[in-house]
Amino acid sequence: MKVGFIGLGHMGLGMAANLLKGGHDVTVYNRTRTKVEALIAQGAKGAASVADACRGEAVITMLADDGAVESVVFSDGGVIGSLPAGALHISSSTISVALSERLEAAHAKAGQRFVAAPVFGRPDAAAAGQLFVVAAGAADALRASAPLLDAIGQKTFIVSDAPKAGNLVKLSGNFLIASVIEAVGEAMALIGKAGVDRRQYLEILTSTLFDAPVYKTYGALIADGKFEPAGFAAPLGQKDIRLTLAAAEDLRVPMPLASLLRDRFLTLLAHGGDKLDWSAIGQLAAKDAGETTS
Amino acid sequence: MKVGFIGLGHMGLGMAANLLKGGHDVTVYNRTRTKVEALIAQGAKGAASVADACRGEAVITMLADDGAVESVVFSDGGVIGSLPAGALHISSSTISVALSERLEAAHAKAGQRFVAAPVFGRPDAAAAGQLFVVAAGAADALRASAPLLDAIGQKTFIVSDAPKAGNLVKLSGNFLIASVIEAVGEAMALIGKAGVDRRQYLEILTSTLFDAPVYKTYGALIADGKFEPAGFAAPLGQKDIRLTLAAAEDLRVPMPLASLLRDRFLTLLAHGGDKLDWSAIGQLAAKDAGETTS
Amino acid sequence: MKVGFIGLGHMGLGMAANLLKGGHDVTVYNRTRTKVEALIAQGAKGAASVADACRGEAVITMLADDGAVESVVFSDGGVIGSLPAGALHISSSTISVALSERLEAAHAKAGQRFVAAPVFGRPDAAAAGQLFVVAAGAADALRASAPLLDAIGQKTFIVSDAPKAGNLVKLSGNFLIASVIEAVGEAMALIGKAGVDRRQYLEILTSTLFDAPVYKTYGALIADGKFEPAGFAAPLGQKDIRLTLAAAEDLRVPMPLASLLRDRFLTLLAHGGDKLDWSAIGQLAAKDAGETTS
Amino acid sequence: MKVGFIGLGHMGLGMAANLLKGGHDVTVYNRTRTKVEALIAQGAKGAASVADACRGEAVITMLADDGAVESVVFSDGGVIGSLPAGALHISSSTISVALSERLEAAHAKAGQRFVAAPVFGRPDAAAAGQLFVVAAGAADALRASAPLLDAIGQKTFIVSDAPKAGNLVKLSGNFLIASVIEAVGEAMALIGKAGVDRRQYLEILTSTLFDAPVYKTYGALIADGKFEPAGFAAPLGQKDIRLTLAAAEDLRVPMPLASLLRDRFLTLLAHGGDKLDWSAIGQLAAKDAGETTS
Repeated sequence: MKVGFIGLGHMGLGMAANLLKGGHDVTVYNRTRTKVEALIAQGAKGAASVADACRGEAVITMLADDGAVESVVFSDGGVIGSLPAGALHISSSTISVALSERLEAAHAKAGQRFVAAPVFGRPDAAAAGQLFVVAAGAADALRASAPLLDAIGQKTFIVSDAPKAGNLVKLSGNFLIASVIEAVGEAMALIGKAGVDRRQYLEILTSTLFDAPVYKTYGALIADGKFEPAGFAAPLGQKDIRLTLAAAEDLRVPMPLASLLRDRFLTLLAHGGDKLDWSAIGQLAAKDAGETTS
Repeated sequence: MKVGFIGLGHMGLGMAANLLKGGHDVTVYNRTRTKVEALIAQGAKGAASVADACRGEAVITMLADDGAVESVVFSDGGVIGSLPAGALHISSSTISVALSERLEAAHAKAGQRFVAAPVFGRPDAAAAGQLFVVAAGAADALRASAPLLDAIGQKTFIVSDAPKAGNLVKLSGNFLIASVIEAVGEAMALIGKAGVDRRQYLEILTSTLFDAPVYKTYGALIADGKFEPAGFAAPLGQKDIRLTLAAAEDLRVPMPLASLLRDRFLTLLAHGGDKLDWSAIGQLAAKDAGETTS
Repeated sequence: MKVGFIGLGHMGLGMAANLLKGGHDVTVYNRTRTKVEALIAQGAKGAASVADACRGEAVITMLADDGAVESVVFSDGGVIGSLPAGALHISSSTISVALSERLEAAHAKAGQRFVAAPVFGRPDAAAAGQLFVVAAGAADALRASAPLLDAIGQKTFIVSDAPKAGNLVKLSGNFLIASVIEAVGEAMALIGKAGVDRRQYLEILTSTLFDAPVYKTYGALIADGKFEPAGFAAPLGQKDIRLTLAAAEDLRVPMPLASLLRDRFLTLLAHGGDKLDWSAIGQLAAKDAGETTS
Repeated sequence: MKVGFIGLGHMGLGMAANLLKGGHDVTVYNRTRTKVEALIAQGAKGAASVADACRGEAVITMLADDGAVESVVFSDGGVIGSLPAGALHISSSTISVALSERLEAAHAKAGQRFVAAPVFGRPDAAAAGQLFVVAAGAADALRASAPLLDAIGQKTFIVSDAPKAGNLVKLSGNFLIASVIEAVGEAMALIGKAGVDRRQYLEILTSTLFDAPVYKTYGALIADGKFEPAGFAAPLGQKDIRLTLAAAEDLRVPMPLASLLRDRFLTLLAHGGDKLDWSAIGQLAAKDAGETTS
C-alpha cells in the first residue's frame, strides 16, 4: 500500500522500517530531519511536510502525545486538510480517549476513515516487527488497515468499532505495567531491607508465578537500579497514567492504584527524573524506606 | 525418610500424598479425622496426636495461621516437646516473620533443627507435586530437608540461612499476587464500564506482556466474577497482607500498595466475603464504579 | 460603585444582595430569569445580556465552573468584548489555575483589569455578608476592588499580585475541608461500629481540639447522615479536587490525600450522588465497613 | 484521695502535680528517679516500687505504650498483684483496645475496678490542669474516679461503660490530629511551591474555617519546619496510628487515610525521625515535591 508515516521516534523508526520490509510504499515525515535519512536509506521516500505524507491510501501517526497529534492533524496543511476522501488515518500514538473521539468525528466530517491502533511493546519489539496491535474502528476501515498492521506487529487484536476503546485498552495496559513496577518496587524494598538478594528474588518470581516478560524486563531494571537510558521515559509514563485517570474520571471509575502511580510519577519528576525510564518509580519505595537500590 | 505431616487442608493433603508417592514413610495428623483416612488409604500411618507425628527424622507443618502453628508447636505434647534432638521441623505454613524468629529460637534451645519452607502454588499444584518451595535455614538443615522438599515441589529456592527470610519472601509473593488482582480489577472496571468485553481483554493481556499464570488464573476469576468455591479464602489473603505489613513496619518500609490491599480485604470481609476466594477483592473497583462484574 | 453581577446561584444571590445593601449600583444578570426578579425587588437593575452587565466600573462573576466562566467571558458579547477599558473583572468563581492565567492575559490584552477574589463560606455566610475573601491581582486593581469586596465579606486577605495564586489558595481550602470530611468520616465509621454514639463523639471533638466551624458543620451532617438538600453539591466538590490535583500536577506536587478524595467523589457520583452535599463522601468509610450512617 | 501515680513523663509530671494541687495524697513512682524528686518537692511521697504506689484507693498509670503498661500491671509486684480489692486502676495511657480489654478482665478477676481515662492535650495543658479527659468504665468506678479526673482536666467526657471504648476514642482523636497534619502538609506543599507565603496562608486558614487549636499549633510547626524539641515524638504518633489500624482491623473498618498516615510515619522513621515531633510527617509532602519546608 501507499502509506505515509509521521513520527520517527524510538518506536516509529522501527515501525516504518517494518512497513518497508513488508513491501509497502512508505513516505516518511519527521519534525527533525535526521531520522528521515535513515529510512530513506532503507527505501522510504522523504516528505517535506505533513501534507506530503498524506497523499496515499493511508497515513500512520506515531507521536509523543495529544499535543503533537493535534498539531499534526488539525493545523493548516495537517492530516485532516490533506488526506484524500476515503483514505485512512491510523493513529498508533498513545493518546487520550477524548482526543480519539475528536479525531473520529473530524475524520468522519472530512469523509476520511479513522482507526485507532495503539501498540504494546518496547523499541526492540518495534524494530523486530513483534508489536502487539490493539485496533478499533469501523469494520471496513479495520479491513483496509490490516496489511499495514500486519507489517508492524506480530498480532492484531480488534476490540471495538469505537476507536476510543482501542486507546482506552492501550492506556489500561500501561497502567497495568506501571502497577507491576510499583508492586515489584515495594516487594524489593521489603525483601532487600531484610537482606535478601534482589536478583535472586527476581529469579524466584519469574521462574514461578510471575513468568512474564513484564516482570523480567522491569524487575531487572529495578533490581539493578538501572534507569538510563530510558526505553520509555518517565514523563511519558506520567502522561499515560494521567490519561488513564482522565478517562476513568469521565466514566466515574475510582482507581486508587492509578492514583498512587500518579503520585509516584510526580515525585519522580519533582526530583529531576525526566530523563529516566519510567520504571524508576520502582525505586521510590526503597527510597521511602531509607534505602538505595544501587 | 520417616516424616510426620501435620495439617491436612487444601494444600497439605496434596503435599502429604506426594511425600508418600516419593517413597517416604509418612505419619499424618489432622485435627479433624476425616482427611486422615484418605491418606491412610494411600499408605500413610495415622497419628493419634501431634506428638505421635513427631517420632521420625522430621515433621512438616502446613497450617492455616500463626495461631494454629503456635498451638501445635508450643502446647503440651506439641512439636517442641516431642521432636527428638537433632530432628527437623519444616514449617511450610505462611506465618509471620515474628513467629518464624520465635520458632527458630525455640527449636535451637531444644536442640532441634528448623527450616522455613513456605510454598507457592494453589491446591492443584500441591496435588500435582508442582509447588515452588522457598527454603531458608541453616545449611545442614536444608541439606537434610532436601529429599522431602523435592517430593512436594518442582523446584526449591534457597534464599537465606535465616528461616524468617523465607517467610518474608513467601509473604511478599502473596502481596505481589494480590497486587495483580487489584490492578486487573481496576483495569477491568475501567474497560468494562467503557463497554469492552472483559474476557477478550484478558485474552489480549495474557497473550502479550502479561503471559503469566497469575494473570490467567486470577484474571479469569475476576472477568467471570466467579469467587466460589474459594481456592484461597479471603481471610487468608487478608492475613497475609497483614503479616506483610507487620514485617514492613518492623523494617520501616512504607508499602502504600499493600495498605490499599489491606483496605480492600477489610471491605470485602465487612460485606460477608469470608467464604469467597481472595480474588474477590478484584471486583471492588467495579463496585465502587457502580458496576457489577457478573 | 456601578457594578455588574453575573451568576445568581446559591452564593451569588446573597453576594449581590449585599452589594445592594452596601449602597452600590448593581446590575444583575443570570441565565435563568427567575433569580433576577428577586434582586430587582431589592433594588437591582436587570440586565438582558452579559454585555448589559458590563457597562460599569466593574463586573463580578460568580459561576459554577470553568466552562461557565469561559462562556460568559470569551463568547461574542462576553465580558472581554463588553467591559470598558480600565474597568475591573472580579472573578469570585472557584476556577482552575490555568483558566485564571488565561483570564489575566486576556484582560491585560484588552486593556482591562483582572482580580481573582474567590470566597470561603457557605450560602448562609454569603447571605449574611460574612464571607472570607481571598484576593489576588495587581495592587491598583485590588485597591479599586476593595469597596466591593468589603460589601460581600467580613474580611479580605490579599495573597499575591498574581491572580492565579488566589484561585490556588481557594482550591487548597476546599481540599482542606474535604480532608476534614474524610477524616471525620473514617473516625465515625470506626467509633460508630464500636458502639460509641456519633453525636456525643462529635461533641467531644468540637469542644476540645477541633473547635472549628468546619468540624461542627460537616461533623453534624456526617453524624446525622443528612446530605440533602446540598449546601455545596458533590459534583462541585469533585470539580474542586480535580482542579486542585491539576494545579498540583502542573507544579509536580504529589498529594496522596487529594488523590484519595478524588476517588471518594468518583465513588459517590458513580452511585447517584449528584444531588447530595459533598459531605456525603464522609459516609463512604462507614459503607465500606458495612455500616450505614443513618 | 490517697492515690498512686505511675509514669512521670512529659504528661504525667503535670498531671501528678495537679493532683497535688487538688489536695490529693499522692505517691509517685517512676522508673528513673530524677522526676520523682521534683514532685516530692511539691508535696508528693516517693514510692520505691510499683507496689508501693498501689496502697491507696486508686492508682493512675500514664505510660508510653502497651509494653510499659503490661510490665507495670502484670509483672510480679505489679498493679494487679498489689492493688487492694475494690481499689481503682485509672489508665490514662494511650494503649491498644486489645490491652484495655485484657486489663478490664484481669482487674475484674482480681476484685479491683478499672477505668480507662485517656486524655487530650499536650504537655503544657497537662501542666495547667487543662486536659480533656475521655473516661469509660462501670458507673460506680467512674463516680469514684471523678475527684481525681477533675483535678487533672478541665472537663471529663464519659463515653461508655466499656473501658476499651475510651481508648478507641482517644486513638481516633490522635488519628484526626494526624489527619490535620497530613492535610495541612499537602496544602502547604502546594501553595508553597506556587510561591504563596506559608505563614500568611496559615493565618488565612486559622482566621476563617479552621479556627481551631489543632490547626494553629500544628500549622505553625509545619510552616516553620520546626520539629524539635518534640512535644509528642514521632514514634508515639506512629504507635497510635498502628493501634488505630489494629482496632479498625478487628472491627473490619477500612481507613485509607489512616493507612496513608501509617506510611508517612514509617517514611519519617526510616529517615531518622525518631527524635522529631510527630508533626514532621507534615513536611513529607513538600519533600516529595522536591521542596524543603525550612
